[in-house]
Amino acid sequence: MSALPSLLAALKGGDRRALARAITLVESTRPDHREEAERLVEAILPFAGGSVRIGVSGPPGAGKSTFIEAFGRAGLERGRRIAVLALDPGSKRGGGAILGDKTRMAFLASAPEAFIRPSSAGVIEGGVGRRTREAILLCEAAGFDAVLVETVGAGQSETAVSEMADMLIVILSPAGGDELQGLKRGILEVADMILINKADGELAPLARRAEAEYRSALRLLRPPCPEWQVPVRAVSALEGTGIAAIWEDVERFRAVAEASNGWAERRALQARRALWSEIEESLLERLRAAPQLARRLRLEEAEVTAGKRSPWAAARTLISLFLGENPASK
Amino acid sequence: MSALPSLLAALKGGDRRALARAITLVESTRPDHREEAERLVEAILPFAGGSVRIGVSGPPGAGKSTFIEAFGRAGLERGRRIAVLALDPGSKRGGGAILGDKTRMAFLASAPEAFIRPSSAGVIEGGVGRRTREAILLCEAAGFDAVLVETVGAGQSETAVSEMADMLIVILSPAGGDELQGLKRGILEVADMILINKADGELAPLARRAEAEYRSALRLLRPPCPEWQVPVRAVSALEGTGIAAIWEDVERFRAVAEASNGWAERRALQARRALWSEIEESLLERLRAAPQLARRLRLEEAEVTAGKRSPWAAARTLISLFLGENPASK
Repeated sequence: MSALPSLLAALKGGDRRALARAITLVESTRPDHREEAERLVEAILPFAGGSVRIGVSGPPGAGKSTFIEAFGRAGLERGRRIAVLALDPGSKRGGGAILGDKTRMAFLASAPEAFIRPSSAGVIEGGVGRRTREAILLCEAAGFDAVLVETVGAGQSETAVSEMADMLIVILSPAGGDELQGLKRGILEVADMILINKADGELAPLARRAEAEYRSALRLLRPPCPEWQVPVRAVSALEGTGIAAIWEDVERFRAVAEASNGWAERRALQARRALWSEIEESLLERLRAAPQLARRLRLEEAEVTAGKRSPWAAARTLISLFLGENPASK
Repeated sequence: MSALPSLLAALKGGDRRALARAITLVESTRPDHREEAERLVEAILPFAGGSVRIGVSGPPGAGKSTFIEAFGRAGLERGRRIAVLALDPGSKRGGGAILGDKTRMAFLASAPEAFIRPSSAGVIEGGVGRRTREAILLCEAAGFDAVLVETVGAGQSETAVSEMADMLIVILSPAGGDELQGLKRGILEVADMILINKADGELAPLARRAEAEYRSALRLLRPPCPEWQVPVRAVSALEGTGIAAIWEDVERFRAVAEASNGWAERRALQARRALWSEIEESLLERLRAAPQLARRLRLEEAEVTAGKRSPWAAARTLISLFLGENPASK
């Protein structure tokens, strides 16, 4: 408990084990941990914010890990310190996921200037961890100047990641060019950059075709940043083709966004939205967990679903119960 | 107050003036009205649900009103009773909007089997009225068997409408085919049908081209219903070309959705989501309006936006204040 000052010092010194411990603390759901975690996050805030936060998203099998391994390596060669937060809602097996990710990114896992944090803890609906935002801040306080947040394109994860990243890179496989893959909602609209991976061997022509198709599909959509034309590139993470150059795209994106003040505005907006979604989620969590509501909640929900009661009236009843019977709620 | 039984009777008799009064009551923000409105909605629930709920969305200038006028007329000719809820977040001028909509849909406005309700009251961020769900139920209780909800494609309105419609028709103008228009987020992903309007006169070739372009762009996206291939059609609402046939698409969509049980499932899911978003919105509303929080809320929000405080800690402080200082909150 009183280990906080030493944890803080080790963290600021760039100690990767301290960083891992700090993230574990922040992800913990134990009430006593939570208080300490909050104090830790408040304490590191002045030292956070200095990285470029890159979301890496895409459907399973697109080669995200291979990309991150190659991209991260190229970043290390440019003198960057790379942190990877790998979120996988599918692998809830704890140790399995951790071993898996470290194997998938063997070079980064052994590089002293890199940090990999595989996590399935608290991964919520959008495919993003409930405390990923705080984990990013911790990585920054530990001196990592590029934080990659990897998430599997499961429904709305791209949108969720784009809410905490400065730039969102979407990785697709060449098969994405035909209708079989079926892109999830919103994936094209929130991408700041689209990579068609596996442009190697037999798949190379397919990747080129997919590149052209996505480029023309993108023309129908409004770009997330008005000043930024979203690049679509065929690359090969396996062979490293086109990977190092993406760091130049990242720099270019940052320059464009900073010139228009979009960089700072995006972060301010993200922070404010995070406040409100935190308020929203916590309030709902409290309501869902309120013991005096449990039975009534199930009842109202069933009736609403069956069309026997209006959502409007049911909501009012539940909220009155929640606020009224929770005088000094804990 | 005690006018409720007679209002209910008139409503169930299909009286359009009673329907208009009922919607006004439901949209009212006066606390005493709200209670009465809730009782009214609960009372009509057993008589609601019988219509096909069609969302009509699209960017300004695509010809949504012209389409609804032609489409509604074709529906009346098929013996349907048509209700139109026209939502326009832009026209907050009250009388102006009402007059405007009735003029834009002159035929429907004068047809005895149709009902038009222009509304800018309580139109929230998503471009959908806060009480549109309840207005649909009232229309159904009044015997309307097709309810068209018109909304301007302003950001997330398509998603919001798709949360209360059985089927979402998106109307685009031929200019939508080139990159200048720039479709808003999610518009392609939630559409159950896409119409390229203005396929008449000089614009006809452009409309055909846009039809082909959207059709191929759609192939990259997953359809909202797996069993339903989203039709893309060039039509002319002005000349009536292709309009009557859309009723057949509506029937076909319904048959497909009912066969897979998707119709009922979608409605059940919508109702449950409506319950939770109602709970969410009302809780946030209460928190925002809590007088004891006002100063603190502004302070925390400013610090979070400036990156001086974490959203996490700020949210916890505010929620504790909210729940703690609200013993028997009203």
